[in-house]
Amino acid sequence: MKIAVYPGSFDPVTNGHLEIIRRAAALFDQLVVLVAVNATKHYLFTAEERADLLRSCTVAIPNVTIKTHDGLVALYASDINATAIVKGLRAMSDFDAEFQQSLINRQLNETAETVFLPASSSSMFLSSGMVKQVCALGGNIQAFVPPEILWQIETKIRAQAQKQS
Amino acid sequence: MKIAVYPGSFDPVTNGHLEIIRRAAALFDQLVVLVAVNATKHYLFTAEERADLLRSCTVAIPNVTIKTHDGLVALYASDINATAIVKGLRAMSDFDAEFQQSLINRQLNETAETVFLPASSSSMFLSSGMVKQVCALGGNIQAFVPPEILWQIETKIRAQAQKQS
Amino acid sequence: MKIAVYPGSFDPVTNGHLEIIRRAAALFDQLVVLVAVNATKHYLFTAEERADLLRSCTVAIPNVTIKTHDGLVALYASDINATAIVKGLRAMSDFDAEFQQSLINRQLNETAETVFLPASSSSMFLSSGMVKQVCALGGNIQAFVPPEILWQIETKIRAQAQKQS
Amino acid sequence: MKIAVYPGSFDPVTNGHLEIIRRAAALFDQLVVLVAVNATKHYLFTAEERADLLRSCTVAIPNVTIKTHDGLVALYASDINATAIVKGLRAMSDFDAEFQQSLINRQLNETAETVFLPASSSSMFLSSGMVKQVCALGGNIQAFVPPEILWQIETKIRAQAQKQS
Amino acid sequence: MKIAVYPGSFDPVTNGHLEIIRRAAALFDQLVVLVAVNATKHYLFTAEERADLLRSCTVAIPNVTIKTHDGLVALYASDINATAIVKGLRAMSDFDAEFQQSLINRQLNETAETVFLPASSSSMFLSSGMVKQVCALGGNIQAFVPPEILWQIETKIRAQAQKQS
Amino acid sequence: MKIAVYPGSFDPVTNGHLEIIRRAAALFDQLVVLVAVNATKHYLFTAEERADLLRSCTVAIPNVTIKTHDGLVALYASDINATAIVKGLRAMSDFDAEFQQSLINRQLNETAETVFLPASSSSMFLSSGMVKQVCALGGNIQAFVPPEILWQIETKIRAQAQKQS
Repeated sequence: MKIAVYPGSFDPVTNGHLEIIRRAAALFDQLVVLVAVNATKHYLFTAEERADLLRSCTVAIPNVTIKTHDGLVALYASDINATAIVKGLRAMSDFDAEFQQSLINRQLNETAETVFLPASSSSMFLSSGMVKQVCALGGNIQAFVPPEILWQIETKIRAQAQKQS
Repeated sequence: MKIAVYPGSFDPVTNGHLEIIRRAAALFDQLVVLVAVNATKHYLFTAEERADLLRSCTVAIPNVTIKTHDGLVALYASDINATAIVKGLRAMSDFDAEFQQSLINRQLNETAETVFLPASSSSMFLSSGMVKQVCALGGNIQAFVPPEILWQIETKIRAQAQKQS
Repeated sequence: MKIAVYPGSFDPVTNGHLEIIRRAAALFDQLVVLVAVNATKHYLFTAEERADLLRSCTVAIPNVTIKTHDGLVALYASDINATAIVKGLRAMSDFDAEFQQSLINRQLNETAETVFLPASSSSMFLSSGMVKQVCALGGNIQAFVPPEILWQIETKIRAQAQKQS
Repeated sequence: MKIAVYPGSFDPVTNGHLEIIRRAAALFDQLVVLVAVNATKHYLFTAEERADLLRSCTVAIPNVTIKTHDGLVALYASDINATAIVKGLRAMSDFDAEFQQSLINRQLNETAETVFLPASSSSMFLSSGMVKQVCALGGNIQAFVPPEILWQIETKIRAQAQKQS
Repeated sequence: MKIAVYPGSFDPVTNGHLEIIRRAAALFDQLVVLVAVNATKHYLFTAEERADLLRSCTVAIPNVTIKTHDGLVALYASDINATAIVKGLRAMSDFDAEFQQSLINRQLNETAETVFLPASSSSMFLSSGMVKQVCALGGNIQAFVPPEILWQIETKIRAQAQKQS
Repeated sequence: MKIAVYPGSFDPVTNGHLEIIRRAAALFDQLVVLVAVNATKHYLFTAEERADLLRSCTVAIPNVTIKTHDGLVALYASDINATAIVKGLRAMSDFDAEFQQSLINRQLNETAETVFLPASSSSMFLSSGMVKQVCALGGNIQAFVPPEILWQIETKIRAQAQKQS
């Protein structure tokens, strides 16, 4: 059985992430979506909120599991005998950072292969940061996030935006 | 009448921005330079200071107006019936972020076209951040900013640099 | 009156080119689409065929004219008092060549501004070369070229492919 | 059973290709290495020679098969019910062309996912073209190609180089 | 006598930096490694600690000196009559920032030439930031930093990571 | 004594090449400009013509010598005990090819370091190919090539353009 890990911040999950999850779930027998918890980074949503949003929009994909993790992805992949670490590759700006990460991961865990799935043209330029910025400025983000969690995402981002202004 | 919007932080305006303003003013009937006000970002100059510096160096270009705005550029462009959103395109590193922004803007306002003007070779690598860094370290920024506002920019940056050291 | 020139090989015109034509026609009063004729380059379609294909699919846009030209674009733009030279900007690989060309054009004609229009996400990766390659190998190109000229394009490319094999 | 296709020119196969083959063979149940035959392209080795070189250096990997093909990869993948089309991703220059190809392939065959495997740091800058150039100029290519086929590759390239000079 | 300056944050020095130091020391008669002190930037190691780590791993290279400096590199280079400012060039993401810096430096000091040394393939994706991240998450950084200072670097990063969690 | 080699096609030499020659001549004790002769490439100017154009415009720089060579640059550098192979680095598009070449060169000759000199902003987008194209189409190339050889370059390119049309 081939297991893959798809790590990320998912702060919050977008349609771009969901598309990668669907496609990776079709390539591997089991897919673990791994919500990164990094003490030095500031997130808008807590790790549990980010995991719950992911669960809400992947409930219909049977071979997907959502987990949170606060260590190295490469070591987690090794612990669960994963064959692959999946990353979405969008515009050029992802390229260097993802390449660097993949080489480091190989050094830390030789048995899990990094696999890049190219974003579709419609989500080529979609990011969690952009979703937060557009929503905080009063824009409509309905084309960018899964419908079942739109309301939760909007509520949180707007509350936060109000606090800061 | 074709109206264009040229949005940016302008913290502070550089010769590179001024060059884009001059060229965009020649392409369109009216050009609104829009000073972004973003509660989550930290600026050195206040929105009003940034607008005033822009006014001082564009006073001779009749079809240019300076405004400040704290919402989405795409919606502002829609409100004033602008045909175009103008962005300067410098080195490669601008490319992805500007493309992302242009696609988001199209989703938010289908009638305002994003138009990129390539930087001239002399301002290809010029940025507000670089101006602030060079000046704070005691360097000469006279080749990088309009002469009529050089003194104001230097005074502010050096005062700030002294506070931090 | 603002006149713009949109130069290219158009060998053959794709939906990506057509999209740029529509958007540029909305930005300027007159748009001249300029079919490049370059003795040192090998084209599949003759200059007249390329111009005719363009005419067939732009007939409904009143302020667009199609011309062929075998000299420097910058000098042509100067001759017709054009304010702008329009270029579509797709993926990263266009960037350097287009920047180079824009700087050269400025040196040859200071009054015509190069203006880049970013490709939409659906035509970000579309090119004449790709259309020819897919069609020659028996693939369906209907999503990539205007419907009114699909048949002409397919007929020519397949005839050529048969000759070479 | 998950089948993957790894298409390419392999003119000739390098250590970089072989590394991708090994890693893709570990990710999927069956891997078909597909030697492209394109009437409009000029190859140094014939399709059969390129396939034979690949067979010689993959004989020890049980789930790898070598095939030649002169049509669209996306349609071939569809014919054999492949889940994935594997591409190696080396330096930045591969990025745009590979992205373009992956989007076209998705349009032609929605069921085969393009999967990018990042080159290891030692083959990041290795290409068939570079191997041919170094060898033709009398350089040592032993670090760049599999040892069991080094002699055959050198013989062919040097014979060709002699003919041209 | 040709003097070169190699400026950087070195927070902390990695094998990638050390490789550039060795190669630059072979190209020039004297090499000054300049540890940047920037009041507006946050470092993990103090300027003196960063300089000491550098001294520990360059003690065997006779023509290398380590200095700290809190002003503009271009002016420092001018003060010591340096012929060259050396920068390592790794992946694409360094390119724009380094080019910008080199053009600014030329404006500030016409006599010191910026010289880029390309990273070797093994340190192409190595950075101080990555070393700190991997170590903070409990990973092994022994392949990334000089052995004589591994212990000091690990001790500091782990102490810091513990404070933040 | 430090010797450097600056290899290239120089078909023909441009102001961009000349600028790199001047700067490299200031960095090293001896600079050999190496005109590449490659049987598989088509040049407009013969190797001797390219060398003579270079000699005409470098006659005033005492430590520069012009040579032609039809083998591997790395081996030539080794034969003359060169410390460095100098390459100009212009826009992003040079980057990958030059990096690839530098890694190959290191494999072939460990003692000659590749050294990149960034183009100045005025020659960032200048190339021999662009000079030939502009001149062939009747444009003015006087800003792009050294004045002492302008006439020879124009004569050759225009004669060639006439033959092809």
